[in-house]
Amino acid sequence: MAQKTYTGIGVSEGVRIAKAYVYLHPVIDTEKDIAPSEADAEAARFQAAVKAALDEVDGLIARSAEVLGKDKVGVLKGQKAILADPAYVPEIEKLIRKKNASAEKAVKQITDQFAAIFAGMSNAYMKERAADVRDAGTRLLGILAGVKSGSLSEIDREVILISDDLSPSDTIQLNQKFVLGFATERGGKTAHTSIFAKSMGLPAVVGVPELLGEARDGDTIILDGAQGICILDPDAETVKTYKAKYKKEQEQQAIFETFSKKQAVMSDGTRIITAVNIGNAKDAEIGAAQGAEAVGLMRTELLFLSGDAAPTEEEQFAEYKKIAETFAGSEPGDVIIRTLDIGGDKEVQYLDIPKEENPFLGYRAIRLCLDRKDLFLTQLRALLRASAFGKLKIMFPMISGYQEVLDAKAVLAEAKAQLDVEQVVYDRDIKVGVMIEVPSAALMADVLAEKVDFFSIGTNDLVQYSLAVDRGNRKIAYLYDYFNPAVIRLIRQVAKAAKPRNVLVGMCGGMAGDPLAVPLLVGLGLDELSMAAGAIPQTKYILSKVDLATCQALAASVADCKTPQEVRVIVTAFAEKYGLL
Amino acid sequence: MAQKTYTGIGVSEGVRIAKAYVYLHPVIDTEKDIAPSEADAEAARFQAAVKAALDEVDGLIARSAEVLGKDKVGVLKGQKAILADPAYVPEIEKLIRKKNASAEKAVKQITDQFAAIFAGMSNAYMKERAADVRDAGTRLLGILAGVKSGSLSEIDREVILISDDLSPSDTIQLNQKFVLGFATERGGKTAHTSIFAKSMGLPAVVGVPELLGEARDGDTIILDGAQGICILDPDAETVKTYKAKYKKEQEQQAIFETFSKKQAVMSDGTRIITAVNIGNAKDAEIGAAQGAEAVGLMRTELLFLSGDAAPTEEEQFAEYKKIAETFAGSEPGDVIIRTLDIGGDKEVQYLDIPKEENPFLGYRAIRLCLDRKDLFLTQLRALLRASAFGKLKIMFPMISGYQEVLDAKAVLAEAKAQLDVEQVVYDRDIKVGVMIEVPSAALMADVLAEKVDFFSIGTNDLVQYSLAVDRGNRKIAYLYDYFNPAVIRLIRQVAKAAKPRNVLVGMCGGMAGDPLAVPLLVGLGLDELSMAAGAIPQTKYILSKVDLATCQALAASVADCKTPQEVRVIVTAFAEKYGLL
Repeated sequence: MAQKTYTGIGVSEGVRIAKAYVYLHPVIDTEKDIAPSEADAEAARFQAAVKAALDEVDGLIARSAEVLGKDKVGVLKGQKAILADPAYVPEIEKLIRKKNASAEKAVKQITDQFAAIFAGMSNAYMKERAADVRDAGTRLLGILAGVKSGSLSEIDREVILISDDLSPSDTIQLNQKFVLGFATERGGKTAHTSIFAKSMGLPAVVGVPELLGEARDGDTIILDGAQGICILDPDAETVKTYKAKYKKEQEQQAIFETFSKKQAVMSDGTRIITAVNIGNAKDAEIGAAQGAEAVGLMRTELLFLSGDAAPTEEEQFAEYKKIAETFAGSEPGDVIIRTLDIGGDKEVQYLDIPKEENPFLGYRAIRLCLDRKDLFLTQLRALLRASAFGKLKIMFPMISGYQEVLDAKAVLAEAKAQLDVEQVVYDRDIKVGVMIEVPSAALMADVLAEKVDFFSIGTNDLVQYSLAVDRGNRKIAYLYDYFNPAVIRLIRQVAKAAKPRNVLVGMCGGMAGDPLAVPLLVGLGLDELSMAAGAIPQTKYILSKVDLATCQALAASVADCKTPQEVRVIVTAFAEKYGLL
Repeated sequence: MAQKTYTGIGVSEGVRIAKAYVYLHPVIDTEKDIAPSEADAEAARFQAAVKAALDEVDGLIARSAEVLGKDKVGVLKGQKAILADPAYVPEIEKLIRKKNASAEKAVKQITDQFAAIFAGMSNAYMKERAADVRDAGTRLLGILAGVKSGSLSEIDREVILISDDLSPSDTIQLNQKFVLGFATERGGKTAHTSIFAKSMGLPAVVGVPELLGEARDGDTIILDGAQGICILDPDAETVKTYKAKYKKEQEQQAIFETFSKKQAVMSDGTRIITAVNIGNAKDAEIGAAQGAEAVGLMRTELLFLSGDAAPTEEEQFAEYKKIAETFAGSEPGDVIIRTLDIGGDKEVQYLDIPKEENPFLGYRAIRLCLDRKDLFLTQLRALLRASAFGKLKIMFPMISGYQEVLDAKAVLAEAKAQLDVEQVVYDRDIKVGVMIEVPSAALMADVLAEKVDFFSIGTNDLVQYSLAVDRGNRKIAYLYDYFNPAVIRLIRQVAKAAKPRNVLVGMCGGMAGDPLAVPLLVGLGLDELSMAAGAIPQTKYILSKVDLATCQALAASVADCKTPQEVRVIVTAFAEKYGLL
């Protein structure tokens, strides 16, 4: 059979060669009725399925906490609550007994009804229950159809998984020892499955519909996550090429990893802080293990998204303290914690944020915190208290101008005054900084620099606002590019404004961990790069290969570029010339 | 009785003193049942109301087209369609005859049902029908209650109208000869009523709930739209003060108006083009009458919003031609027509734009046009054809970078080539420009200047994106300020990039017509200011009072401002010093 190449969307890099394992979610008949005489047996079959579903969910909850962290457990607990709901299961049984519906039909009908009711409620919390009901219904139907929901977890040989789609429940089950990568029919760059693959370092290609119809269990398949392609039944030559590619990838990775324990130093001795972006204390440990020298960004949102109420001062303090302690012995070991950056795009019931037309241009982050001083003071108190246990720094998100900096610092002063009265110790010289992610902040960097100790450029939002592009919007995602010359001008301007004022400039957006961007950013004058843990070894490697003057020349050479494409050509040529990739 | 002052939201400036006319929408009993024997009479009463409603709507449609332009007629036509709907009226009658409902009860019930059904549909067009049904129902109830819906139109003496709220149907009926201003219980700055007041130049204060309960027909009332206050039963002193204020306002206005026919020239002879923003050919006439020397912005959206399909090339050509001709004899008489600037925030069924999370950062304007080349080519052909009849210029909206300019110009070249083949005449030297409203465009103005003849700075969006503030979002509207120093830096940068490249720089955002901003903008280097028709006389007056060097010094003096407040203090002091207000 001739080899065939399928093109999709590469969502997680890496090359893998293995046998295909095709996993298709079952199609179930949910229209069938039963004879009245069968009702007892059908109800019993249904109740058995409920028990099996509860057992499965409990198993998954245990597994989930271990593999993916506690915050993923909530989804499963929601399913469990539905299966134990005083109305849901009894209503299904009633339909089986009174209307001669098959268990499948009854599950489908009541699930749809409940989901519609929940979805129709104005309360955000209740709306989320609609998803839980649907998940519970799907699980029951799978069990009734005799499909072992656990089958994905039972894969016991190295495979590349080919599927129609992977739900959160599916991905939790994957055994990464054996599933080397996956390709799915559906999905996009921002789908759950894609984010999962990236965080797990699992090569993946999504949006390859034709592959599913043609691949069979045991077919040889090559997955190339960077290129976004799958090659079915590759010929000997292709296998050889990709084996070489895989080998090179592994060797390269091994070289990068030798840098993880080294200091990030350029070839001329210039020191660049290589930091990690984290969401919780566990991430901090992973980052430290990969060689992070500091935390460039701790997002505190996770703490606020996981519960039914805002986290208490004690809960926050405990988490911040743990992170500060993790890095207390590192050099420099600074831990930048960003105050709450949340808004109308996230549904947090207890915050009661009104539905907005354009949440990215709305009531969020520092705007919300200055308005909700209760929340803000609590967080600042927790941060100050934790500052006694490490080198903690406080960063305010979404600053758009000078007044907001003054206002936020005034609340911080209030928190300090409270702790002084209570005789609680904290770092009296704690450093304060701001995110540079709103264009006006970048434009006013010289003025903001008078009032802060450091800047951290957040390219994700800076690009979004500078180009007026919601990066989650697929129709215009082509415009979203941090190599846009306008963005580079802003970065240059921020660094230039900061330097003479002794303000440290870092970056914590997606750009900072991009191998193509690292030399350019250093050349533009950044002091610190903060990124996903996995990118740290390669970044240290890159820095060791180049010197500051060369990077500055690179930065100068892109100054006249008119388009992102022109910039990319230049940085790519540079990376190739110095063997950085 | 002692005078009493009520504070609300001033939505349209101006001072007026007159007798109050209190108009309260009736409260109607929609619970009542009738005796079976009354059914025939009740059904007849209902049918008479339907006829009266249809007559009223027809009358309003005629009046509306004359007073407010064709685009307002759509709303009324929607009501008419509902009244003629094959189910709506018969269902109401059925309820009267079969269930012994009073006409009011039946109208209420069926109206609610229909509105709920329409509102629940996913199709945007059908959703809008829900509003039509509610309007139709309200009209029927008013007629049944014996309240002449026409009563507002029958006001025949000078009054200040005090009402609970004014619906679109209400405002259409107002006779501006007699209604000198209004105050309402409900409403906000962006409500329909407020926009109406501003466009009509009718002083108005909204959100003054207490007033309604206390004012009686014939009470003397002072309305101060700038201050957002109403004074009931003013004492002699206050009346005197306000009469003086009114007199000064009128005198000032008379002085301004003497400038409407003069050329806009600064005291040192510097010529600044004073242009008008328009939405259609009728606006062009109004602008010309107020002394506009050019059209700085024609928004073409109205043409695309009023029908069920995109306007044809012929329809567009006719409108553009009329506008070009209106200004053909003016000096300079340039007419800048902006290509379609529409997106996901407007529901235009035939465009089928997907619902977006952040429509202001989405698929809109030039992004949509480059994707929907059919629409774009048609519009460009119509524009080119109209260019044979006046000094027409083409402007592309929401340009975020260099490539989009090249792409848009390529489509324009295609349109020209088509017309060449068809041997249709057009202005071969037609000037092409871009809106500077996305921060990246402002930052790259030097690069964009290589490819265009003019810039027009759109402050409304530029402020929105630069500060990441949706100006329609009340919770954060306090951040929206075009005197923000970051915005001023961008304007300065754009003018500086344009000048040496002989690119004309205008402004067509809300800032251009603000008396406080005019001297600053001229000082920053703008060549043209485009504004609402009503602001033109005063702008010409202001320009006549100052010279370029003084304005440049003013612009230099705000360069170090840290906050919008600091800028406002400086420009206000300047305006006072030179007597500009």
